Amino acid sequence: MIRKFRIGDPIPTDAVVMDIELSEGSIPYFDTDKEAKELALFLEEDDKVFGLGETVRGINKRGWLYVSNNSDDPNHTENKHSLYASQNFLIVFSKKKTFGIYIDTPGRVSFDIGYTFHNKMSISFEDFDADIYVIDGDSAEDIVSSFRHIIGRSYIPPKWAFGFGQSRWSYLTADEVREVADKYQAAGIPIDMIYLDIDYMERYKDFTIDEKAFPNFPEFVKEMKNRGIHLVPIIDAGVKIEDGYDIYEEGVSGDYFVKKENGENLVAAVWPGKVHFPDFLKDEARAWFGSKYKILTDVGIEGFWNDMNEPAIFYTEDHLNEVFDQIDTYKGKNLGVREFFGFRDLIAHISNNEADYKRFYHEYKGRKIRHDKVHNIFGYNMTRAAGEAFEKISPDKRILMFSRSSFIGAHRYGGIWCGDNHSWWSHLLMNIQEMPALSMTGFLYSGADIGGFDSDVTEDLLLRWAAFGIFTPLFRNHSAEGTRRQEFYRFENIPAFRNIVNLRYALVPYLYSEYMKAVLNDRMLFKPLCFEYDDDRSSQIEDQLLLGESLMLAPIYTQNATGRYVYLPEDMKLIRFRSFDDYDEEIIEKGDHYIEAELDEILVFVRKGHVLPLAEPSKGMGDVTKDDLSYICFEAEPSSYELYTDDGISRI
Amino acid sequence: MIRKFRIGDPIPTDAVVMDIELSEGSIPYFDTDKEAKELALFLEEDDKVFGLGETVRGINKRGWLYVSNNSDDPNHTENKHSLYASQNFLIVFSKKKTFGIYIDTPGRVSFDIGYTFHNKMSISFEDFDADIYVIDGDSAEDIVSSFRHIIGRSYIPPKWAFGFGQSRWSYLTADEVREVADKYQAAGIPIDMIYLDIDYMERYKDFTIDEKAFPNFPEFVKEMKNRGIHLVPIIDAGVKIEDGYDIYEEGVSGDYFVKKENGENLVAAVWPGKVHFPDFLKDEARAWFGSKYKILTDVGIEGFWNDMNEPAIFYTEDHLNEVFDQIDTYKGKNLGVREFFGFRDLIAHISNNEADYKRFYHEYKGRKIRHDKVHNIFGYNMTRAAGEAFEKISPDKRILMFSRSSFIGAHRYGGIWCGDNHSWWSHLLMNIQEMPALSMTGFLYSGADIGGFDSDVTEDLLLRWAAFGIFTPLFRNHSAEGTRRQEFYRFENIPAFRNIVNLRYALVPYLYSEYMKAVLNDRMLFKPLCFEYDDDRSSQIEDQLLLGESLMLAPIYTQNATGRYVYLPEDMKLIRFRSFDDYDEEIIEKGDHYIEAELDEILVFVRKGHVLPLAEPSKGMGDVTKDDLSYICFEAEPSSYELYTDDGISRI
Repeated sequence: MIRKFRIGDPIPTDAVVMDIELSEGSIPYFDTDKEAKELALFLEEDDKVFGLGETVRGINKRGWLYVSNNSDDPNHTENKHSLYASQNFLIVFSKKKTFGIYIDTPGRVSFDIGYTFHNKMSISFEDFDADIYVIDGDSAEDIVSSFRHIIGRSYIPPKWAFGFGQSRWSYLTADEVREVADKYQAAGIPIDMIYLDIDYMERYKDFTIDEKAFPNFPEFVKEMKNRGIHLVPIIDAGVKIEDGYDIYEEGVSGDYFVKKENGENLVAAVWPGKVHFPDFLKDEARAWFGSKYKILTDVGIEGFWNDMNEPAIFYTEDHLNEVFDQIDTYKGKNLGVREFFGFRDLIAHISNNEADYKRFYHEYKGRKIRHDKVHNIFGYNMTRAAGEAFEKISPDKRILMFSRSSFIGAHRYGGIWCGDNHSWWSHLLMNIQEMPALSMTGFLYSGADIGGFDSDVTEDLLLRWAAFGIFTPLFRNHSAEGTRRQEFYRFENIPAFRNIVNLRYALVPYLYSEYMKAVLNDRMLFKPLCFEYDDDRSSQIEDQLLLGESLMLAPIYTQNATGRYVYLPEDMKLIRFRSFDDYDEEIIEKGDHYIEAELDEILVFVRKGHVLPLAEPSKGMGDVTKDDLSYICFEAEPSSYELYTDDGISRI
Repeated sequence: MIRKFRIGDPIPTDAVVMDIELSEGSIPYFDTDKEAKELALFLEEDDKVFGLGETVRGINKRGWLYVSNNSDDPNHTENKHSLYASQNFLIVFSKKKTFGIYIDTPGRVSFDIGYTFHNKMSISFEDFDADIYVIDGDSAEDIVSSFRHIIGRSYIPPKWAFGFGQSRWSYLTADEVREVADKYQAAGIPIDMIYLDIDYMERYKDFTIDEKAFPNFPEFVKEMKNRGIHLVPIIDAGVKIEDGYDIYEEGVSGDYFVKKENGENLVAAVWPGKVHFPDFLKDEARAWFGSKYKILTDVGIEGFWNDMNEPAIFYTEDHLNEVFDQIDTYKGKNLGVREFFGFRDLIAHISNNEADYKRFYHEYKGRKIRHDKVHNIFGYNMTRAAGEAFEKISPDKRILMFSRSSFIGAHRYGGIWCGDNHSWWSHLLMNIQEMPALSMTGFLYSGADIGGFDSDVTEDLLLRWAAFGIFTPLFRNHSAEGTRRQEFYRFENIPAFRNIVNLRYALVPYLYSEYMKAVLNDRMLFKPLCFEYDDDRSSQIEDQLLLGESLMLAPIYTQNATGRYVYLPEDMKLIRFRSFDDYDEEIIEKGDHYIEAELDEILVFVRKGHVLPLAEPSKGMGDVTKDDLSYICFEAEPSSYELYTDDGISRI
């Protein structure tokens, strides 16, 4: 049962696609304090709280303060309150009561989940304007399904997007891309995508190609496609200000950019230098920007990633001028320490400066609205721009799309990656812990940058991360400029990487099938154990996941480990894969176990009464068969597994 | 067996106090490559590497690159190579070979321990000048003992320093300190120390008191001592430049400060604003600075902590001037993004700027030496200044001393705390993982800031951290300006905190006894399991420790956990403490177990054939009895435990 309540006068977000009648009366479960702009809930000792999508800390969100405020902050340490996304859906979970709540507002919301007081959850608002959906159901997953039903069907990528993709900021030339393809193929490691980060563009101008670095781009796209590799370029939110650049000129003449209070287009700086931001919230601007993707689909591109769309702002012209004026007041002075810190912080806070987000306005549903009031739906509407356009540009075939910034609603148009993480073991764990919350909020096509984007990876971290990443729909190895090169073929144990990636391809029939069933039936792809098993221990497990109907995962996420503890809520069959066709099966009893796993081994647990179909190996997704599957079964027949198949590319 | 080799012409560090004859020939185990300035070792698959003292990552250091380069960097994330200390001792550990190596040089050393190549350890040098000690022995702990023997006896603090201490940056007035004492005592939580951070000083001037905030300081010290509380003030490395400030004037006239190449005293800025740094490497300056502690011991102070002694440098006058000149070149320009980043980084790198460490010189053992060549022994010599002075100022009674920066050798004069950590669960784990390496390198009186210094703590993190912290010799709750207040009495579950701290006091007879035996016999206080147990699993345990002869610890270090897995290499007796006198005993069999532990419970494992003596509760260390102990035994008699006792204050 879903009940919708309204506080104040909310700005619509289009996150919910179903009309639900407003309920009168007070919001159940919560005390509503209009004065304090707060909804408060008493938490029982054993209440757990799940959800909130892409955030730091554990699967159970209890014990921390989360703030929905999309932020380009690459240091995802435990003390952070906000990452790139605002996904305001959560479930309070216990034996006594389990219910869901969705806070629908584009503004800033704080979720104090037992942080200030262990037994209090406080949801507080900058503006007390929101639609509040309270969802009851028979189980946590039922509640999720009801919620997913009202927010609309999750995005479906082309099936080839379940292949492996290699990325780097940046492969600077076509030859560098060819080299990556060559080396992967020479190493016998299948690969389906190579990502083009910002340097493929002509001076970071959206929808352009650096012709010097990538001569005859349409031919190059074709050449790579003939090798089974999709090129997936990045699209950034800012449009370079440059006379003669058609996108810029159209944007100006079409009045498509966000404006300052005085009506001038905001001048910000991101990768291209000075830019204007398209007003993705304005229907005409969204349609215009979306239509530009056709420039690239026309040359054969079939997938994109949208970036920098919180939006990240290196600086605004106005603020930078203010800063230089302030710097003058420091110069030549005998700076006290606090003054020096003031000076240092002034510069440190130029980028993504909070005040800058109040400097510009949107034209949204006929109203002029200051950016900070709708900040969290900016990236969502960029993804929507693409998604809406793709339906016209490519009415028959699916286009790959995922984004850095997101908000519920964006899940209908694309997936996400978990932002600019680090090559930290703790970020592998975070990746694991984020997946169920992303399933709850509809972001099914998602995954983290395998191996970590920033910082230097180690081979063992990359192996372990890949061994988890093969289970996430988005399976991409990506790393930043200045960090250790991270392509699998650059390391010592190439056979181990090959076996891991091969196993991914062997798993595709299962992954795709479970993915599609989750999309079409509003189910979760990744689940916390307690969504299926009702014992206390299951509700406390923070490092194991259920994946689809058949599998439990227990990834290894610590340095130098050659095994880990695993909790089994029931008997399961452990498959210890050394490669897709070299594995041991062992039935493990319900309970606690220490399971060994060498660096080149991947553990998968098949649930009782379930089946894991496996394909033959392939050189790429073009080659994955749906016939000729083998089956690993635990007290089940192969025929009991309902394999979803389709052509993998037609829109459905 | 210890063999000493020499490469190049090393600058002495005084880390080793015993004369050991130089061996001829090549350094065993390693390939020496003079050209590459590298010692290289092939690592077998099962080799583990322990040591390096205060560093990030696990107990087993394999898989990362560590650089000895004392750094004031508060973000101790996994990708960092250097923290505040350089403790260049490590043990290569396996069934085939186990040996120790100590690299004695004050310069920069890199330890690539299977990072670049999984099977290669490379020790590389900025300057190929070092004394290399290679240590063989029957066991890892024998090797540690041999090493500890040559570096001299570890520091012995007064016994009251085993009490609990509360700190904050800063308690600003005497009344705030009184309030802390009042509230602890009202909450029935014993407390022995309150730390005074930088604001007790008059404008951050070393060895001064802010008379307005702390009127009649000698009386105040007495008043607090009468309440059983030692005030422990901070001493920073920089001496404020201020006419009329006696320490500054003496330093100038005595020629005690570090100098630029042109002979002028270096002008740097830290908390007091502009300062000169004493040349702690110069005997006269060290003696002079050390003698100043008497200003505070004369008014009854009996303990200190030395800070900012890497040294941290907010800016140097010369560099800041250069920066402002460079800023002028940016102003008014249409900044490209890379230029903007250049500008931003210019300011971000003002503090602790690498070039600044090459701007000044020491007078060390009769030579003028540029700072960067002896950087890592600067903080050590500040601690040494204090320690050498204390022997004169207080020839009979011990004085408490611990430091932020350190180098082996400093362990003879004081302990350390593990620097400016964060309120992160991962930093609780890091605290656990650092303790054995600190034992190896002689830093026995050590511990981390309980609850974390920076970031906002949560109650559960503070409870779990305290439940581990009661086992570390330095048991201090410390937190930074601007973070959530962190005194135990500010939280909801005061009884749990009271029970935890009471248990600390009950443990003091054991802790002190084990501490003193470790000091006097060159043994380790905290050990990895594999130093006692030779099974493979023990060598992989990263989150359990042996403490002294009787105990194994298995702390809980994850959010929302109500238990954890524990590996027992043999049968042990689990003591589940709810308070010092409310506990269950249970014999747990060798093997793997999931052990429940509520937030208010503390787990201790007593080893077979061993005894844990416990004292009655006390209101503070003045009150801890050594008579009237009770004993928890596991297949042992109370009499088999050798309890070390002394008066706790006389020098020995």
